[in-house]
Amino acid sequence: MTNAITIAVDAMGGDHGPPVSVAGTALSAVRHPDARFLLFGDEQLILPEIDKHADLKGKVEIVHTDVAVAMDARPSQALKQGRWKSSIWLALEAVKRGDADVVISAGNTGALMAMAKFCLKTVPGIDRPAIAAIWPTVASECIVLDVGANVGADARQLVNFAEMGAAMARALFQVEKPSVALLNVGVEEIKGLDEVKKANTALASSTLPVRYYGYVEGDDVGQGVVDVVVTEGFTGNIALKTAEGTAKQIAEYFRAAVNRSLLSRIGAFLAQGAFRALRKKMDPRQLNGGVFLGLNGIVIKSHGGTDAVGFASAVDLGHDMARSNLCDSIARDVTKFQAALEDGAEETGGTDTAPTRKTVEQGTH
Amino acid sequence: MTNAITIAVDAMGGDHGPPVSVAGTALSAVRHPDARFLLFGDEQLILPEIDKHADLKGKVEIVHTDVAVAMDARPSQALKQGRWKSSIWLALEAVKRGDADVVISAGNTGALMAMAKFCLKTVPGIDRPAIAAIWPTVASECIVLDVGANVGADARQLVNFAEMGAAMARALFQVEKPSVALLNVGVEEIKGLDEVKKANTALASSTLPVRYYGYVEGDDVGQGVVDVVVTEGFTGNIALKTAEGTAKQIAEYFRAAVNRSLLSRIGAFLAQGAFRALRKKMDPRQLNGGVFLGLNGIVIKSHGGTDAVGFASAVDLGHDMARSNLCDSIARDVTKFQAALEDGAEETGGTDTAPTRKTVEQGTH
Repeated sequence: MTNAITIAVDAMGGDHGPPVSVAGTALSAVRHPDARFLLFGDEQLILPEIDKHADLKGKVEIVHTDVAVAMDARPSQALKQGRWKSSIWLALEAVKRGDADVVISAGNTGALMAMAKFCLKTVPGIDRPAIAAIWPTVASECIVLDVGANVGADARQLVNFAEMGAAMARALFQVEKPSVALLNVGVEEIKGLDEVKKANTALASSTLPVRYYGYVEGDDVGQGVVDVVVTEGFTGNIALKTAEGTAKQIAEYFRAAVNRSLLSRIGAFLAQGAFRALRKKMDPRQLNGGVFLGLNGIVIKSHGGTDAVGFASAVDLGHDMARSNLCDSIARDVTKFQAALEDGAEETGGTDTAPTRKTVEQGTH
Repeated sequence: MTNAITIAVDAMGGDHGPPVSVAGTALSAVRHPDARFLLFGDEQLILPEIDKHADLKGKVEIVHTDVAVAMDARPSQALKQGRWKSSIWLALEAVKRGDADVVISAGNTGALMAMAKFCLKTVPGIDRPAIAAIWPTVASECIVLDVGANVGADARQLVNFAEMGAAMARALFQVEKPSVALLNVGVEEIKGLDEVKKANTALASSTLPVRYYGYVEGDDVGQGVVDVVVTEGFTGNIALKTAEGTAKQIAEYFRAAVNRSLLSRIGAFLAQGAFRALRKKMDPRQLNGGVFLGLNGIVIKSHGGTDAVGFASAVDLGHDMARSNLCDSIARDVTKFQAALEDGAEETGGTDTAPTRKTVEQGTH
């Protein structure tokens, strides 16, 4: 990585393609004078968008391809059609070759993950990549993973997730020893799945630079009890979407309540400064971007339906992750962790035996 | 069941005991003139509370016991200490003997479930009971189960949950054919756990009086997409608590936003009618009460830390469940379902084979 950050943008991904991805890139470019951008996709569609944004002048390079992966393509289809030549693939390859520090794509999650694994491969010692989300909390933010790369995880994979999440927290929140917890259904040690219990034992006895908190429950996540919350992808995805759905639902209640009377509408008008701040805080575009962790390269998945503001958040996140040298620190930490785990395994009778929940990779079928 | 509804109240359960349980019972008594109450617990503590509530006059009977299960008792301890003689046990036994139609307890979940299973036994054809929660939606409410009776569920158990949830929806929402969905991480058929897929196949081909919707995701629950959302207890518990946590978190954001300026505070004062309505809608006490389904008797678990208003909601719910004859309809529907499932199993190669996620009963260890 040089002093400048090079960001590879899959300009064709997402529901809106270049109009959103180029505009979002321009918004982020203003905030990051040290960034330059490689835009992958159809030159005919990208060039006119670049012309609209003076902020991109001298900072972008287009890598033309007329192959784009459809938003509804299954991972296997995407791999078959998009490998070697699609905008997603070429963006990934730029990172692999060292021409870029991070990839941003609003393409479909399954296709992006399948291609990312195929192109970048996982970090040695990591079985499976995970997707990490930045989750707003009462006071600030925390990291939750896995939110949907895999269904199910054994103890060893959960420990991997803890380590990768901690590395991301170190990079993003600038804390030396992030606090880490496992998501569970109760705080008593007797509760929960076998693999969660085994991961708990392994993490509790590890000597890694994390403050291991133990278990948290669903309502602790948004309270910001810890920096990193670890769970397998099925539960993590459902928790994340449930939180998003609840926020949307409450916003609807709020609108309905305020519109019930003239007095309420006047009150809401007077308090509009407060509500604007609240709306901004609850705006899902502010924290747009799932981070693929555990690959030899950083990949940021933007929400497919987002606008330029949301896409810019994903680019910002990619910039911060690249700047902090996330991949190297994950690789380094995982090596240490593996050693600690193997020591721990001798005492606890193994952490990766007899997983009780089968792990299914989402990205490969 | 006679025309009057008899409600067995474990007066000793919860963080506050008789002051809350008796006051809550009194609040509900006013709303349900057809109800009478059996209060189980320490007469010395209950009698003075009853004297405070004229509404209970002539409607209550105390069944004295000086044994109460501690709120932090493990299920096995609770069974050992509380069987045959505790307030929870005697309340359950009243239902078993036909002296009461429903039990309300704010005692701890694990202990209550362990004793309920031991005393009431499961309905024939049901492997494991589930806990159903009533979840507020944009337009009204839906039922989500299991929210924590078990960790993990195989396809057959998920189908059981669907049937029991549908019976509850029929009773509570007065719909003939409730819509039912399985909670999953995506709407594509390829996604999700094996057991969820198998349950999907079984439900899609069943001839039962439900409208089977297919899969929903976490954000669909609060949107009220279906009447009944089925999942296993680990994910269900985390989803429920995540939604509760998110609501609490947004309420905190809201307070902070409004208190930022005088103008906001004035606006909020003018709109206070609207906010009161909103607060009421979001008040967790309004929907207090987990329903234990699949036992030969209805058991309602109130939140342990709730106040009289919250406890009264749990009593109201118990009254409605008893009035609708929920147990009989579950038993009837399950018999039909079992037959349909066995037909389906021949075609699909079995719905209850090779569960990929081990089921662990929370209540028994």
